[in-house]
Amino acid sequence: MNDPDCFETMVGCLKRLPGVGIRTAERMAYRLLAQPDRLLRDLREALDLAACKLRCCERCGAVTTPDRNPCRLCMAPDRDDALLCVVELPEDIRTIERSGGFRGRYHALMGKLSALQGDGPGDLRLAQLLNRLTDGTVTEVILALNTDVESDATAALIVERLQAFPEIRVTRLASGLPVGSGITYSDPVTLGRALAGRQTMEQIHRG
Amino acid sequence: MNDPDCFETMVGCLKRLPGVGIRTAERMAYRLLAQPDRLLRDLREALDLAACKLRCCERCGAVTTPDRNPCRLCMAPDRDDALLCVVELPEDIRTIERSGGFRGRYHALMGKLSALQGDGPGDLRLAQLLNRLTDGTVTEVILALNTDVESDATAALIVERLQAFPEIRVTRLASGLPVGSGITYSDPVTLGRALAGRQTMEQIHRG
Repeated sequence: MNDPDCFETMVGCLKRLPGVGIRTAERMAYRLLAQPDRLLRDLREALDLAACKLRCCERCGAVTTPDRNPCRLCMAPDRDDALLCVVELPEDIRTIERSGGFRGRYHALMGKLSALQGDGPGDLRLAQLLNRLTDGTVTEVILALNTDVESDATAALIVERLQAFPEIRVTRLASGLPVGSGITYSDPVTLGRALAGRQTMEQIHRG
Repeated sequence: MNDPDCFETMVGCLKRLPGVGIRTAERMAYRLLAQPDRLLRDLREALDLAACKLRCCERCGAVTTPDRNPCRLCMAPDRDDALLCVVELPEDIRTIERSGGFRGRYHALMGKLSALQGDGPGDLRLAQLLNRLTDGTVTEVILALNTDVESDATAALIVERLQAFPEIRVTRLASGLPVGSGITYSDPVTLGRALAGRQTMEQIHRG
C-alpha cells in the first residue's frame, strides 16, 4: 500500500464512525498525524486495550468483557425473561438499574434513527432484537426510549417490526410531568401527553 | 486498568479528535465495540499503518513519509525561500500546486480558529510559523486562507502575531469575482470586495 492510500484508508475508517463526514474525517486524520507521539499513540493504545479487554454483550449490547459474554445482567438467574426493556444506549441500562424499578432483561439498540447523523435502521441492533423474540419467552417489550422526534421515529419503526409478533405486548415509558415539577413550567407537548395519559387515582396508588 | 477505565480511556481519546464532544465520543466507542471484527479492527489497522508510514512534514505540515521529512516541496532546490504561503490544510497545498502559479514554500496551519469546533490558537501551527520566520529568509507571507468568517479571524490573528516581524510583507489572496462568473450572480459582499480591490487595466495586463 503506498502512502496516499494509507492516508485515504485512515480517512475512510474514521468516516465510518457515527456523525463523521468526509471533511471531519480528513481533519481528524491531519490532527492525528500532527501529533504522532501524543494523540495517535494514545488512540492506538486505547483501541488496542479496548479490543483486548472490552466487548459489547452479544445479547443486550451493554459493555462487558470477553470472558463475561453474555453479560452479568443477561445471565442473572433472578430476573424476569418475559420482560424485555429496549433502550437506545448501554448507559441507559445503568440509569434504569439505578432506579431499581425493573427486574427484566435489557436490549440496547446502539443509537436511534437520525437523519442528521446519517443513522438508519441498519445502524441499530434491530435484527438482534427480533432474534431474541422468536423463542416465545418474551411477552412484553418495553420501549424505554427518549422523548425527542428521532426517538419517536425509532419507536414507530420497532412497533412496525414487532407486528410479526402479535402475541407480544409493546409498551412505552409513560410521558408526562416530571416528579417534583409544576404545571406552570411544563411545555404544551408534555402537558398534552400528561393529559392524554391521565390515570385514575386507584391506578396511581396501585403503581 | 479495569474494564470501565478502558472504556473511559477510549472515550477520552476519541474526544480529543477535532469536533468531537463527550456524547459523540461515547457513541463512537459503542459503535467501535459493537463491531470488534470490522470497524474496530479496521481502524486499528489503519492507525497502525499510518503511524508506521505517514508523518506530517515537520516544516510545512503536509502529509509525507518518515524517510522524507522535511517533505519533497520543502526540500526542492528550485523554489523561492523568500515567499511563504500559509494555508489552512495540507490539501490546499495540492490545489495551489495544481494552479502552477506559486513557486515558493508552504506552511499548513492544520485548521483555523473555530468556536464551533472548539479550535483555538493552540490548535494551529502558529509557533512553527513564527519559528520559520526568525532567520530572516522569508520576506513575504502570503495568507492563502478561505474567505469565511473563521478564516478572516485566523488571518487577523496571524497579522497580529507577525507584527513582531515588521520587515516581512504580509499579503492575502485577492477577493473578488470568480473568473467565468457574472455580476448578476455575485453576492453583495463579494462584489463589495471586488470593488474595493479594483485594479487599473495596466495592473491586470501586467499580472
